[in-house]
Amino acid sequence: MIIEKKRTRIVKFYETGTAEVLKIEEVDLPEPSENEVRIKVDAIGLNRAEVAFRSGAYLETPNFPSLIGYEASGVVEAVGNKVTSVEIGDKVSTIPSFSMNDYGVYGETAIVPEHAVSNYPKNLTSEEATAIWMPFITAYGGIVTNGKIKKDDAVLITAASSSVGFAAIEITKLKGGIAIATTRKRAKKQQLLDAGADYVIVTEEEDLVDRVMEITNEKGANIIFDPISGPIIETLTKAAAPLGRIIEYGSLSSESAKFPFGQMLQKRLTVQGYILMDITTNPEKLKPAKQFIFEALEKGKLTPTIDKTFDFEDIIEAHKYMESNQQLGKIIVKVSS
Amino acid sequence: MIIEKKRTRIVKFYETGTAEVLKIEEVDLPEPSENEVRIKVDAIGLNRAEVAFRSGAYLETPNFPSLIGYEASGVVEAVGNKVTSVEIGDKVSTIPSFSMNDYGVYGETAIVPEHAVSNYPKNLTSEEATAIWMPFITAYGGIVTNGKIKKDDAVLITAASSSVGFAAIEITKLKGGIAIATTRKRAKKQQLLDAGADYVIVTEEEDLVDRVMEITNEKGANIIFDPISGPIIETLTKAAAPLGRIIEYGSLSSESAKFPFGQMLQKRLTVQGYILMDITTNPEKLKPAKQFIFEALEKGKLTPTIDKTFDFEDIIEAHKYMESNQQLGKIIVKVSS
Repeated sequence: MIIEKKRTRIVKFYETGTAEVLKIEEVDLPEPSENEVRIKVDAIGLNRAEVAFRSGAYLETPNFPSLIGYEASGVVEAVGNKVTSVEIGDKVSTIPSFSMNDYGVYGETAIVPEHAVSNYPKNLTSEEATAIWMPFITAYGGIVTNGKIKKDDAVLITAASSSVGFAAIEITKLKGGIAIATTRKRAKKQQLLDAGADYVIVTEEEDLVDRVMEITNEKGANIIFDPISGPIIETLTKAAAPLGRIIEYGSLSSESAKFPFGQMLQKRLTVQGYILMDITTNPEKLKPAKQFIFEALEKGKLTPTIDKTFDFEDIIEAHKYMESNQQLGKIIVKVSS
Repeated sequence: MIIEKKRTRIVKFYETGTAEVLKIEEVDLPEPSENEVRIKVDAIGLNRAEVAFRSGAYLETPNFPSLIGYEASGVVEAVGNKVTSVEIGDKVSTIPSFSMNDYGVYGETAIVPEHAVSNYPKNLTSEEATAIWMPFITAYGGIVTNGKIKKDDAVLITAASSSVGFAAIEITKLKGGIAIATTRKRAKKQQLLDAGADYVIVTEEEDLVDRVMEITNEKGANIIFDPISGPIIETLTKAAAPLGRIIEYGSLSSESAKFPFGQMLQKRLTVQGYILMDITTNPEKLKPAKQFIFEALEKGKLTPTIDKTFDFEDIIEAHKYMESNQQLGKIIVKVSS
């Protein structure tokens, strides 16, 4: 008797480059090893980190052939030995807490470590469930865990028109802070106000430091949550309040910049490099973050923002769309099988 | 009947400049106002901050005529209204927790705010009592309060041949850390080892990053306590462990430097500008620091380091000596009256 092996399709790539390096391949259905879970994927949420990883511009360099992808939702289809927290049939989504050199969720099927698998609030669709952990945990870790937000703190959220930026605005407001969002062009101002920002600074038209000082009665921002880095750091230290904390969670700018020691010492600022994994790979930090986000999502106090949905076959188009910077919120790839 | 006013001598200066701007002047004995204490000064401990203030290179600019001086010991001679924590006759020393635009302790007599007055361990001489709060609270605040030292942490203490550097070595050891001190020249190596450093890196002869990596088994330093700033920041980020904390408590270097975003994000480092006053003006932070230092001094586990003693009349010479950078430990000015 011939046992026909089940097949599935996953995305792999063999070299860094443009979106076209992504290949959908049919492979034998993989089995989860110890402490691993296999998910029948329903939807994939795209992240900038994946575009950077694919392009060779990420903190980690891919080992080829490489898998890709951090966030997906679906149903648990098989569990490896020692898995205790989920069962076959559970509806789950994945928390980015692994290296894409070990795991990747772009596929009809994904194998992920047990610690990366979470249930999600029942009021969310499976698409929405791929749009929660990365933005909300990133924002929570930056503003609450590291930023140590207190009531009435002024929080400056730069380049705020991203899913993390929206999440940062919502979390700032839930924690009683004042959310000051920045965006380069006037076009996105209303959307940021709609998302809950108390103030929006359009940086192509307004002076960032002047406006922050005006808004905060010359005190400056207590927390600055910035994905840009580079020369803006000097501006940010000027906009900061004494003892302010600047959390750098990306480097959209690759320009070099001067270290602003003067402001740093005069105001005793803290500048901290930060990534999501600092929270998701630390159970002590992850637990309160997850709990806060889960409960706020259940109560409708946090809003997953979805921009556009692509078909699995159009994964290359989806990556290209992300690189076009038109989106406001999560780009989803729907897997129908 | 003519009441003869009592006279006293204090140091004032009327312009920024070299040590010669310091003038000893005879004035009427001042009376303490509400919440102030008058101390009959026995000894003054000199600080680099005072040389910078006198030269016009400090965080604060003097308002002329200006007083000067943060640390003195002596006996309480008069108290203003509402002073409750000290009494006439108490032996005390001062904790730098005020602006030199408001108070200065260089004199036979000093008026200081009550919160800046502390008793000191009985086993210390009055000279030693002027050599404890600045170095030990600065080091404690950098390594414990902000550095959050844990047992077995590797602590890199740069430019360690100063009273703060010695204090940092002792506090690191008391907290179970590994003290790695740096000094430019071989001459001070043995003194740093004698002070308790586990390792000393002579930066003119050895590569700082290579040595730190060798000492820490390629992990890097968990805490870096640096008074230099400037271009060394790039080296320090390379010597740091992932999630390491770099505490900048001075800017001996005035050269500009690049902001090392790459290392900052790759290792998620924290760089924090820090000064003593962050601790001494915050009662919540000051209390545990003072208690730790007081008890360790009482038990002989911390050592005030005195380099040389000058007479009050030689205050200019004392400042010049500090600027010559020969000292290892506190420069004291003894006031005999």
